[in-house]
Parts: sequence; structure tokens; C-alpha cells
Amino acid sequence: MTQTNILYAQSGGVTAVINATAAGVLAAAREHSDEFGTVLAAHNGILGVLREDLYDTASLTDAEIERLSRTPGGAFGSCRFKLKDIDEDETHYRRLIDVMAAHNIRVFFYNGGGDSADTAHKVSQIGDRLGYRVQCIGIPKTIDNDLALTDTCPGFGSAAKFVTVATLEASLDVIAMADTSTKVFILEVMGRHAGWIAAATGVIRNTQADPPHIILLPERAFSRESFLAAVKQSVADHGFCTVVASEGVCDEHGRFLSDTGRRDAFGHAQLGGVAPVIADLINQELNLKCHWAVPDYLQRSARHLASAVDFEQALAVGRAAVEMAHAGENAVMPVIERLADAPYRWRTTSVPLAEVANRERTLPDEFIASDGFGITALAKRYFQPLLAGESYPPYREGIPDYARLEMANVEKRLPSYDA
Amino acid sequence: MTQTNILYAQSGGVTAVINATAAGVLAAAREHSDEFGTVLAAHNGILGVLREDLYDTASLTDAEIERLSRTPGGAFGSCRFKLKDIDEDETHYRRLIDVMAAHNIRVFFYNGGGDSADTAHKVSQIGDRLGYRVQCIGIPKTIDNDLALTDTCPGFGSAAKFVTVATLEASLDVIAMADTSTKVFILEVMGRHAGWIAAATGVIRNTQADPPHIILLPERAFSRESFLAAVKQSVADHGFCTVVASEGVCDEHGRFLSDTGRRDAFGHAQLGGVAPVIADLINQELNLKCHWAVPDYLQRSARHLASAVDFEQALAVGRAAVEMAHAGENAVMPVIERLADAPYRWRTTSVPLAEVANRERTLPDEFIASDGFGITALAKRYFQPLLAGESYPPYREGIPDYARLEMANVEKRLPSYDA
Repeated sequence: MTQTNILYAQSGGVTAVINATAAGVLAAAREHSDEFGTVLAAHNGILGVLREDLYDTASLTDAEIERLSRTPGGAFGSCRFKLKDIDEDETHYRRLIDVMAAHNIRVFFYNGGGDSADTAHKVSQIGDRLGYRVQCIGIPKTIDNDLALTDTCPGFGSAAKFVTVATLEASLDVIAMADTSTKVFILEVMGRHAGWIAAATGVIRNTQADPPHIILLPERAFSRESFLAAVKQSVADHGFCTVVASEGVCDEHGRFLSDTGRRDAFGHAQLGGVAPVIADLINQELNLKCHWAVPDYLQRSARHLASAVDFEQALAVGRAAVEMAHAGENAVMPVIERLADAPYRWRTTSVPLAEVANRERTLPDEFIASDGFGITALAKRYFQPLLAGESYPPYREGIPDYARLEMANVEKRLPSYDA
Repeated sequence: MTQTNILYAQSGGVTAVINATAAGVLAAAREHSDEFGTVLAAHNGILGVLREDLYDTASLTDAEIERLSRTPGGAFGSCRFKLKDIDEDETHYRRLIDVMAAHNIRVFFYNGGGDSADTAHKVSQIGDRLGYRVQCIGIPKTIDNDLALTDTCPGFGSAAKFVTVATLEASLDVIAMADTSTKVFILEVMGRHAGWIAAATGVIRNTQADPPHIILLPERAFSRESFLAAVKQSVADHGFCTVVASEGVCDEHGRFLSDTGRRDAFGHAQLGGVAPVIADLINQELNLKCHWAVPDYLQRSARHLASAVDFEQALAVGRAAVEMAHAGENAVMPVIERLADAPYRWRTTSVPLAEVANRERTLPDEFIASDGFGITALAKRYFQPLLAGESYPPYREGIPDYARLEMANVEKRLPSYDA
């Protein structure tokens, strides 16, 4: 048998379009059936590889793969698990090799964020280090948009589109009622260390009166005084104030705002949520009626409003990974290169995994307005095309008809392994 | 001049489709230009009438009206304001008459929920009581679905569709990660006294394994013990647990769960949010990782995913109100009558305002599963058609192209009035 199999695994927080990347991998691999046998998908990421818990995707029809591409979440299961350094402990790496050898796997695609790029890079070295020839290719995914060396990360555009549309819609609600009801609305969005998602909502602000009036970013220390002054000013000038806050916004001492010693009736530290903290502050200091929202997972799973550009890029990196494998590459990652802002043009290109691993890209200074509460025209030019187009899922009786894959579990050939 | 003008006002919390009702009124009134002059829209509901703060909609093009119909929020502004009883204080009623007389208004449409039906009913009596002939017609609107005598309320279907889709999508996210991350997800939805929105999410549950595993309703007292047992069981059986909680869920003593004496570091009572309270409870008692979401206004403004049935019904009640006015009716409200579940058929019909005012419809017992944590097959048959169809707004550069109406303010003819 000259064909070898491909192993695909999803890692870290899932997104609205990571399954589109999976679909891109599956579809492209089938076009190279001369070289590639089946695509085996690990159940729950690298853990599934270690546990030899694999699905065989061969039974999926092309129609099922298409439907998979329009389904949010991680269809094969994902995990949060960091491999130890190979110099520290080879055990897991030897097990990976056993599993790959047992299933004739010579290509491993690891679809994740910065940590996963690190894992993928480690695995890419086992050919030289442990004598098993395997091509390991990372595939980017993260709503946080914080990967280095790519113009954007598949998953980000859809999360950004959802929260931006939500900001616009909720603001239309607030302005309609502000005379006799809520005057300040706070939307808390994901972004613990980088404010990409919060910043993207700035694309809808064309005049001073437009929301969001204030964007709070982890890249800028939160100042109580200037924040409260800005809220007051917005309510005075426009009748209301919409605030978009990154979950990771910190005070001048670098302490998360959501960790301000809040305790419940039992003295237990309260679970996160920077929005209620800010709402309390506004209530106490300005006596303005606030509402707040925390969409949490809704923002990263909102496939019902995926960005068409994001969807296409998610598909494209999956396909590109297969082409790179076909070309014999190892220790690389397909990324998005921007060729032009307007009209937007992009292509996939390849970067070394070693240069992506463990690097975090925060918002550049030139994207942040001088008062720290908004974004610049440069930032708008960056964000706008990433939100473009609506990729809708199919519906049945009013509910998205998301894929429920029926796949065979691959028969185990190895002793069980505790991971 | 034989034509008389129509006055239209929006009241109470706005919805994703209340502007569709406005559009229905405007379009239908234009079809009766022999009888009706212009439609004047009050700025911020009944307050705008009292303040003589009115827009003239005559300048809106048909294309603008169409775009208005696909725009969330209340385009003319809404308010929370309850008129005193006419026996108690006639002042406001006399002012309403002055404003209507000054602008040749003989038809008043008040578009709101239960309180607004009460206001509309009071205004409908001023012909007899204060000698000014006016037809007052209430038009239903509320995401809470708690109005009497109508099968459903425009606004509800879209809110229910959004939270149901969100429940499905977030659950796909959770199940993908549950092995190494979040095991319990709590979605808090609106519904202070009635659990219609939370209950609707039950339509996606076809097997025990499907989310939502637990629905918490204001109609059932919260029992810590049985709730925690159900969460534990769901995680054991399915690997995760999705909880949809109405904001108004109460304990056995009728106390809101979100009001459990929680205090911040300064000793201030904490702002609402039943989801974080439940998450704390699960953390403390079961030691399971939780995430929670509070979409707040996002759920009632999510025009990007409106139910097509809800949209059509919102338009229809606006049109029906005009036809009822044209037929000379007073003190009535157009409502939705269900003719069949599947295939779903409905029509608008008319009910007396007096019978709608101040009545609240909670979930019927026969819609609630015996354990109190789910819905019955009967409930599913009720909810399913209300979520059907996707009414999408137009987009421009990735963002919904919502209406921004440019309308003339009507010149004031009366002394100013403090309301």
C-alpha cells in the first residue's frame, strides 16, 4: 500500500468555523486519493491521539462534509492539553508515534491557536528526534486573533461580526428607551490578553453619536476617572452610552477588573464578569440605569451569522494544509496574507511553525485611538473586510440543520494508555 | 379636509420586529389615503404625545418603510410610562385631546404590551368621558408572550428563535470541550414572571442527550436539591449539561434567585444575573467547571435572526389595526389566532382592549414537564411554528443596513407641557 493516512485533530477553544477547516481538509484529501488514504480524526484533540480514540471519516458523504462546514463547535471534540517539552519527557511523543505507526499515519494536522502551534511544532520534530517520519502541519484557529504571522485567524471574523452586529442592535434598543429607562449598556466580549474582538465593534462608529461610544481594551489600563467622565459625556451628548468591554481589561496595577474582591453572601469570590463590575461602578458613581450582557460562548459559536470571508478562509487553510502535505512540507502552518484592503484580496501562504508557536499578537498601538476608548481609521480598514458577507447555515423548521456526524470509531490496535 | 390623521406610538420594551408593525401601519394607512391623511409618530411613546413631540412620516419613501420593517429597536422611541386612572386625574387625558385636536388626529394606535393595552383602553374611553371622538386601537408587542387572548405576541417568536439557536450553538461548543473544560453552561434569558422564552428552547430537545437538559421557569419554584441532582445526572449521562434559566426564577419562598443577598466588596447589593448565582452554586456544590451567558438586550434586538413568522405577524397586526380603524372600531386590539399547528395556519382577529389590559398569561401547566425542568410535546407543537423561517435584514459591508429615518418634526401648535 503506497497510500498513507492523515490524522486531523482540533485543539483549544472551538469556533463558529473550525469545522469548515475540517471540511476543507477532508475534501482536499479526497482529491489526492492517490497519495492519501483516509483522514482519521482524533476525538478530543491530541488526547484522542494519545488514547487511540479515532474516527474514520471515510464514511462521510460529500453532502455531510458540506454540512459539517456550516456547523459550529468542534465536531470531533477538542481539548485543552499542553504536551511537555520533548527534552523533559518523551513518553507522550513515543505514544504518538506508536499510534501513528499503528494506523499508517504520516501526516498530522493540528488545528488550533498559539499553544497548539507549539504542540504541532514539537510533534514536527519527532522525525529527527525519535526516528519516525511524519509531516506535522499546524492549521490556525482562534477567535482571539492573536496568532503571529497571519493577517487574521479563522474564527475571529465570525466572532467579531456577531458582537459587532449585537452592539449595533442592542444600541438601537437602548436609544429607543433611554429617555425613561436604561442609559448605559455594557457588552462584555472575549479577549483576555488582546482586545481584537472588542476593537472590531468600532467599525460601526461613523460619527460621535454612533455606538460603541467606549471600547475598553486589555491593551490600555482602565482609569476609573476618565472612564466615568466619558460615560457621563456620552449620555449628555447622545442620550445614551454603549460600552464594549474586553473581559481582560485591567486596572493601573495590571489587576483584572473582574477580580476586585467581589464576594457573595458566603464570602466566596465571585465568578468573572467584568460587565457587572462596570455596571455597579456606573450605578454608584453616576446613578445612571445600566444593563449589561455577557454573550460568552454565544459569540464564538454563532455560526448562524458567520462572516463569509471568515468561512472561506477557514476552508482555505484546511485545503492549503493538505496541499502543503502533498508537497512534502513539515513544521509549517498555512496563514492568511492580505494583498489589499479595498477591494479586499487575500491568499494563503506558509510560515514556519517555530515562528508562530507561543507568540501572542496584541492590538498595535496605531489601531487604538489616542483616548484609548476607540479605534483608528487604520484599524477600521483592517477589520472591515474580515466581517464581510453572510454565510448562513441551512435551516429546518426554524432551527439550523447542523451536522450530526455518524462515523465509525477506528478499531484500537494498541494497549490502552492513560492520558 | 375630510381626511384625518393617525397617531402611532411605541411603548415599553422594544423588540426585533416592532418596527415591522410600524411599517405595516404606515403602508396600510397609505392605501387608505381617501380617509387617512398622514401618520404622525410620537417620539418616545405616550410621552411624545403629551409633549407634542411628533414626527411626520409622510416624507418616508416606500423603500424606507420596507427598510424600517427590517430594523430592530423602536425607530420612533419608546417609553415606560403609565397614565393615571382617568377618575384619579384627568390632566394628561385633556392634554392628549388637545394634542390630537391640534393635529387633526382621530385614530390613535398604541403599540405595546399589557400595560400599554391598559393605557390604550383608558384613551379609548375619552370620547365618551371627555367628549373628543377618537378611535383608540392597541397593537400587541412583547417578547414576553404574556398577553392574554392572543396565540402569540409579535416580538416573542424572534426572541425565542435567537435564544433557541444560541442554546444549540453554545451546546455544540460545550460538548466539544467538556472532556477537559467546561461541563455546565447556563444561559440566562428574559422572563421575569413568565417562562415563555426559556421554555421555547425546549424545541431542540429530541432525545435525553440533547440540550437544553434543564429549563428553569418562574412558574416552578427552584429546588436546590433536585436541580443539583439533575445537573449531576446530565453530566454523568451526557458529559455536559446545558441549563436555560429564566431571569425570574424564584426559590420556594418566592424570592428571586438573583437576589440572594450577594454583595460586592463595598457591601452594595449586586446587580441581577441569575446565571452567575447558579454557576456559583454548581461550583461550590458539585465542583464542576461552569460558563454562563446573559444575552440581555441581545435577545430582544436580534433582528439579524428574526423568525419569518414573527416578522409576518408583526406586519400583519400593524395592517390589521389600520383596517380596524378604517372599519370604525374603537377599544380593540388585533391579535393572532392559530388555526392549525402543522402545517401552521393563522389569521388576525380582534379582541376588546378591556379584556387584554393588565392580564398576564403564564405558561400553562400542561406545557411543563412533570419534573419541572423541560417542556411537553404539546408545548413543542405550540412553539415550533413560531420560530419558523428566517427573515434576514439587508447588509452592507458586512453590517446590517438598518434604517436611519430622516423625518420632519411636526411644528408645535400648543404651549409646552411638562410630562
